[in-house]
Amino acid sequence: MKKLVIIGGVAGGASAAARARRLSEDAEIIMFERGEYVSFANCGLPYHISGEISQRSALVLQTPESFKARFNVDVRVMNEVVAINRLDKYVTVKNSLDGTEYTESYDCLLLSPGASPIVPPIPGIDNPLTHSLRNIPDMDRILQTIQMNNVEHATVVGGGFIGLEMMESLHYLGIKTTLLELADQVMTPIDREMAGFAHAEIKQKGIDLRLGTALSGVEYIPQTHMASYAAGEETAHQHIKGHLNLSLSNGDSLDTDLLIMAIGVRPETQLARDAGLALGQLGGIYTNEMMQTSDPAIYAVGDAVEVQDFVTGQATLVPLAGPANRQGRMAADNMFGARETYQGTQGTAICKVFDLALASTGKNEKQLKKDGIEYQKAYVHTASHASYYPGAEVVSFKLLFDPSSGKILGAQAVGKDGIDKRIDVMAVAQRAGMTIEQLQHLELSYAPPFGSAKDVINQAAFVACNIMKGDAMPIHFDEIDHLSDAQLLLDVRNPGELQQGNVIDGAINIPVDELRDRMHELPKDKEIVIYCQVGLRGNVAYRQLVNNGYKARNLIGGYRTYKFAKV
Amino acid sequence: MKKLVIIGGVAGGASAAARARRLSEDAEIIMFERGEYVSFANCGLPYHISGEISQRSALVLQTPESFKARFNVDVRVMNEVVAINRLDKYVTVKNSLDGTEYTESYDCLLLSPGASPIVPPIPGIDNPLTHSLRNIPDMDRILQTIQMNNVEHATVVGGGFIGLEMMESLHYLGIKTTLLELADQVMTPIDREMAGFAHAEIKQKGIDLRLGTALSGVEYIPQTHMASYAAGEETAHQHIKGHLNLSLSNGDSLDTDLLIMAIGVRPETQLARDAGLALGQLGGIYTNEMMQTSDPAIYAVGDAVEVQDFVTGQATLVPLAGPANRQGRMAADNMFGARETYQGTQGTAICKVFDLALASTGKNEKQLKKDGIEYQKAYVHTASHASYYPGAEVVSFKLLFDPSSGKILGAQAVGKDGIDKRIDVMAVAQRAGMTIEQLQHLELSYAPPFGSAKDVINQAAFVACNIMKGDAMPIHFDEIDHLSDAQLLLDVRNPGELQQGNVIDGAINIPVDELRDRMHELPKDKEIVIYCQVGLRGNVAYRQLVNNGYKARNLIGGYRTYKFAKV
Repeated sequence: MKKLVIIGGVAGGASAAARARRLSEDAEIIMFERGEYVSFANCGLPYHISGEISQRSALVLQTPESFKARFNVDVRVMNEVVAINRLDKYVTVKNSLDGTEYTESYDCLLLSPGASPIVPPIPGIDNPLTHSLRNIPDMDRILQTIQMNNVEHATVVGGGFIGLEMMESLHYLGIKTTLLELADQVMTPIDREMAGFAHAEIKQKGIDLRLGTALSGVEYIPQTHMASYAAGEETAHQHIKGHLNLSLSNGDSLDTDLLIMAIGVRPETQLARDAGLALGQLGGIYTNEMMQTSDPAIYAVGDAVEVQDFVTGQATLVPLAGPANRQGRMAADNMFGARETYQGTQGTAICKVFDLALASTGKNEKQLKKDGIEYQKAYVHTASHASYYPGAEVVSFKLLFDPSSGKILGAQAVGKDGIDKRIDVMAVAQRAGMTIEQLQHLELSYAPPFGSAKDVINQAAFVACNIMKGDAMPIHFDEIDHLSDAQLLLDVRNPGELQQGNVIDGAINIPVDELRDRMHELPKDKEIVIYCQVGLRGNVAYRQLVNNGYKARNLIGGYRTYKFAKV
Repeated sequence: MKKLVIIGGVAGGASAAARARRLSEDAEIIMFERGEYVSFANCGLPYHISGEISQRSALVLQTPESFKARFNVDVRVMNEVVAINRLDKYVTVKNSLDGTEYTESYDCLLLSPGASPIVPPIPGIDNPLTHSLRNIPDMDRILQTIQMNNVEHATVVGGGFIGLEMMESLHYLGIKTTLLELADQVMTPIDREMAGFAHAEIKQKGIDLRLGTALSGVEYIPQTHMASYAAGEETAHQHIKGHLNLSLSNGDSLDTDLLIMAIGVRPETQLARDAGLALGQLGGIYTNEMMQTSDPAIYAVGDAVEVQDFVTGQATLVPLAGPANRQGRMAADNMFGARETYQGTQGTAICKVFDLALASTGKNEKQLKKDGIEYQKAYVHTASHASYYPGAEVVSFKLLFDPSSGKILGAQAVGKDGIDKRIDVMAVAQRAGMTIEQLQHLELSYAPPFGSAKDVINQAAFVACNIMKGDAMPIHFDEIDHLSDAQLLLDVRNPGELQQGNVIDGAINIPVDELRDRMHELPKDKEIVIYCQVGLRGNVAYRQLVNNGYKARNLIGGYRTYKFAKV
């Protein structure tokens, strides 16, 4: 009989416990969770704050009792493992309910401690109106603050997943919201120009978005007295009236009633470090591909571990629920003798930002540049399903590929419909090692309500293959403002499209359908830089010009890419 | 300078023409279309009949004029190619407008004639109230019939894509509708048990669905006189009052005001056959993988050609828009010297049936059986996105795989949300040659509004791998009604789930969470056949029993698969 001890009862830990029991009826399985809840829906927390998930109980997927009944797992909440004795294979546990300590032996140990929100040492940040969001008690505290105070304005620091979701939730509640982000974009897994679509959406909804802005100081200005513990008052029943005065990195200040810190998370490695387990170069717990730590009896999964990046093979930290769940299941298999291997993480991610979805898989351009990996890229903006069928929305899609081999390096998509589908297709194609040549041939489901005969992905692959084969000479959005005297900017859209001020300075206009007759107006000694709305007509014009002996380039992704890159 | 002649101006032909011009500015390109319209949205026709696509003009994507302006293609509508002289490389064309005939030479010829609706020789079927739907004039005639008659009841014959879409469109217009289908299911690309979900939906909407029923005779009963051509009356202005009396294969008869024949299509091969081009074994135009016919100067694409099935390598006819479009583009490349090869057709297909989507890729079980290909299968029914986030719907998913290699053979999905996404993921995975083992590791996009940490696909792969590795001993829905005395049926759902009459005869009930304590109630000398609602708890129970020395099987897909298979 095997004794399995699991530290952490959420995604990875809970998956491992359930799988372990299915593998063995007679193993002893103990799952320690220092918090009050196991197997809760941490990804759902912002949506209960907004009220979209109305029942708090919907977030609690399992209880210690249900785990016991179904999986015969001994779940001990409010029990924190404070030390691991690897030599004698036992853990020391502190029971937070009564303060006692005890030990528990193990044959196999699984670490699934997760990651904790980073709260930087900003002066004044430790105050009753400032919160992070990691677990149910955090959520309860934020809800309590909103309910007990008259929160008219909130500030979210950090434009990542949780920051964006909290921004949306607060806005949903009718609270005026400011979003501070140190970088020049939100949602860093996607590139700056793709984030522009999100910036436009966020501003359009009335959020006060401040990019390139950090929080530098917080002053808590109470309006009534706080709970006095000496007088026997409890925090839970105080009314924390008051507000915050925030100092920003650009010298501005900002009054706010609620501050949410969401600048990121760091792996919880204290216990592993104290036990002398190896850490990786990024500070996460080191694991091999079987999810084993440097101690073969100890496995680790989830947000706390370093895994291999699928594209580069380098170490990476990817605090996402999908990998954690699958790693947990796999670690259980391996603890019972299997030799399942984790296949690396692509970092496939998606975030809802009001009516938009933003998603990506693989590497982004920033990372490729940083890692010195050669790449080329294609943009398309095309309908989520047949444009003549009601409800079609533009999918803005970016494809990154190796210009020599055509290997897929990454993909990003933004839009109101069909974003998850396109990124899932790309996640599979990349994982399968497909090339852009193969993407052209993908046979995706098509009927007018669902797709197009040439899907977004096919179209992006066509553009990419044209570039790779030299059938299209690309120019990209960030080069358009720096043309030389030897270049001429040609807008091939129709005059009706130009009247909205949506033009690039210095362009001359010849509509694509008039180009054959008016080609003689163009100089042969200059490079003609063509653009249209999304790049499609530009390609038609490009082919005409090149096949007639002109030098030309086409703006990939057209004016739409250029325009939103600036938002 | 090359002269390219294209026969057929819709999906494949129009794609080829546009691509050809992008490849060459000086090629002469002539596109013949015997109908009035080129490049129209044939997939959108049913949705204009329903009024969901309100503007008829939305279906006409290009005109001869727009094609000329943008691509310098000489488009000749109402011009039918009636003969091909391969020796001297010219075609004979009949101009339907003035009845003249002329010839046009070619260097390369592309056949994209499409497929035509099969109208069986049923007595009386040739009448003014019976229509097929292939093109815009067909659509206009159907609309005219609906508008000019008081159509209270319509009958659709054939439960394929067009039949289902027409059924829905007629229902949308408030017309009581009967659907006749000779087979025991609609939508034959999916298997019978998966079609059960569609049957339930169709009946629930009030459609008179008659499976296993053919049309055997039609009697046209006019109420007023028809247009008299002799008297100078035009069909367009007559009022075709009247109705039809249908005789059905089961002896029933049926009064109806409108009859839509949608039993299938057959490739248009007359021209190719007359020219002595090779046909394939299924009666389509033979093509090699470069889309070349038996005459190297003649290419053919679209619904009229036979291509290789991706899974079996055998010849197949797949009259779908996606392949036609991509083949057209590729044929143009090859006519200009490329050596692009078509990679076979998976037959990825999707159809909207009221609130449901039905989709599939690869081979179905019927085909695998017929071809004698060894297979195993897994079913899951799980939420389209995190079940605690509003709007989640059940995805019913079937995965077919090779039990030895784990290779993906096919997949089917039915549900109200996320069906296209799952089938697209499977279409890519299958095309990439992935196995069910690899499907487990797919890293798909997850946030509560879009997916689950363990996606439908991951879960199906888990079930499939459990079966393949022997960790789960499956029993399937069609075996449940034929258990032997050596088997005992065990329902592990909760008593609350059983009170709706949703039980299988002869089952005893022990809820999964009580099983450990009550296991002794079960006999060790019988095989315990376990089922729950969808198969998940059944697997937990199965593992418990087997790990305790019982013989057991688990109903894959649970009661839900069993129940809908009977609808």
